[in-house]
Formats: sequence, structure tokens, C-alpha cells
Amino acid sequence: MKLDDVKFDEKTGLVPVIVQDVNTREVLMLAYANREALKLTMREGIAHFWSRSRRKLWMKGEESGNIQYVKEILLDCDYDAVLYLVEPTGPACHTGERTCFHNRLKKTTESSSD
Amino acid sequence: MKLDDVKFDEKTGLVPVIVQDVNTREVLMLAYANREALKLTMREGIAHFWSRSRRKLWMKGEESGNIQYVKEILLDCDYDAVLYLVEPTGPACHTGERTCFHNRLKKTTESSSD
Repeated sequence: MKLDDVKFDEKTGLVPVIVQDVNTREVLMLAYANREALKLTMREGIAHFWSRSRRKLWMKGEESGNIQYVKEILLDCDYDAVLYLVEPTGPACHTGERTCFHNRLKKTTESSSD
Repeated sequence: MKLDDVKFDEKTGLVPVIVQDVNTREVLMLAYANREALKLTMREGIAHFWSRSRRKLWMKGEESGNIQYVKEILLDCDYDAVLYLVEPTGPACHTGERTCFHNRLKKTTESSSD
């Protein structure tokens, strides 16, 4: 599979990227990449993304120093979602947590109104 | 965290959902949920999604029988991405592969043109 195989969204030009710790297998974050970000990641082996809020290319850790070395990049069966398997050098989350997925959603069996 | 905390995309009404095997820690697929799909998942403990291509609510395995029991639901720090930790009863991928992420993207060090 090559960069040309990736189906970036027609409207946004982006593809969602799941970031997983290659050693602990923990899912660290979900972000987005445009073609340029993915190309840089593939070439340099360091996780790059497109920041939708800041509307700019973004190397993870460029400010925090917590860069992510990308060991493998996988593409899903529809070619429209990407998985970076990384060795992080620090926490993924800006809150200092190891993973951005640190909030548990409660089951709603107790809540009939929702 | 409650269903009301989840930030569905303003335009699409959807949130991306990463599905991970709670035992093997393998990332199985990336799909999308609207509020109704997430609500059903939280209530019934079985993975539901919104199919963007078929434009309908979709219970994983409703045709294949490969349903996913949801053991935990996590929300990321921005409240706009969800992680289902599941016990699958069969392959996640329609190709029969255990995970949809079975295509490796080649590094492009050898390709200076891209």
C-alpha cells in the first residue's frame, strides 16, 4: 500500500488517524492527517498531523517535546482510516495523561430520560 | 461522563469511534456513531454505529452475526472521539480478517517523487 491508495475525505482532504502505543497497545489519541502530514510521517518516521482547530500542519511534540516515533502505519480495508503504531517519548495528552482516552462514559441503564 | 458530554460534529452529527479488542488490545476498526447509535450502545452493551454509506443506524453483526459486546466506553480529552472496548464474537472486517487494519503502508524513503 502506498500514499496514493489512501482515500482522503473529498471535502476536508483529511483522514482520521488512530495512534496506538506499539508496546503497551494502549490507544493514545485520535487525530487527522492531510496528505502532506501523512507523507512526512511516512518519510521521517515521526508522527505528523493536520490540526483542524489551528488549521496547520502539526508535528506531535513540536511544543511539548513529546514526539511519537512511528514504527508502523496501517490502513484499513476501506482505505479511509489510518493507524500509527508509535513509541511515544512522553504523554500523548495535553493534560499530562498518558492517553487522551481517560474519560469513562457511564452506561445509561439508570437514566430512562436519555 | 454522560452522553450529553459528547461533542458530535456540528455538520454531520457524528463522532468517530475506535473499536479495540479489550483482551488482545488489537485495534479492530474505525466507524462513526450518531447520538442514537451511542445511546443504544451505552444502554444495550452491544456496538452500534451510523453507516455513512448506507445512511442508517447499524448494529455491528446484524447481518454477519459478528456482534461486539462493549465492556467499556471511553471519551477523549476533547470529547469528540470515542473508544469502544469490546469482546468480539467474530472477525471485525467484512473480508474475514480479525481487524480492518490489515494493510501496511510502506515508508516512502525510496520514493523521492512522492
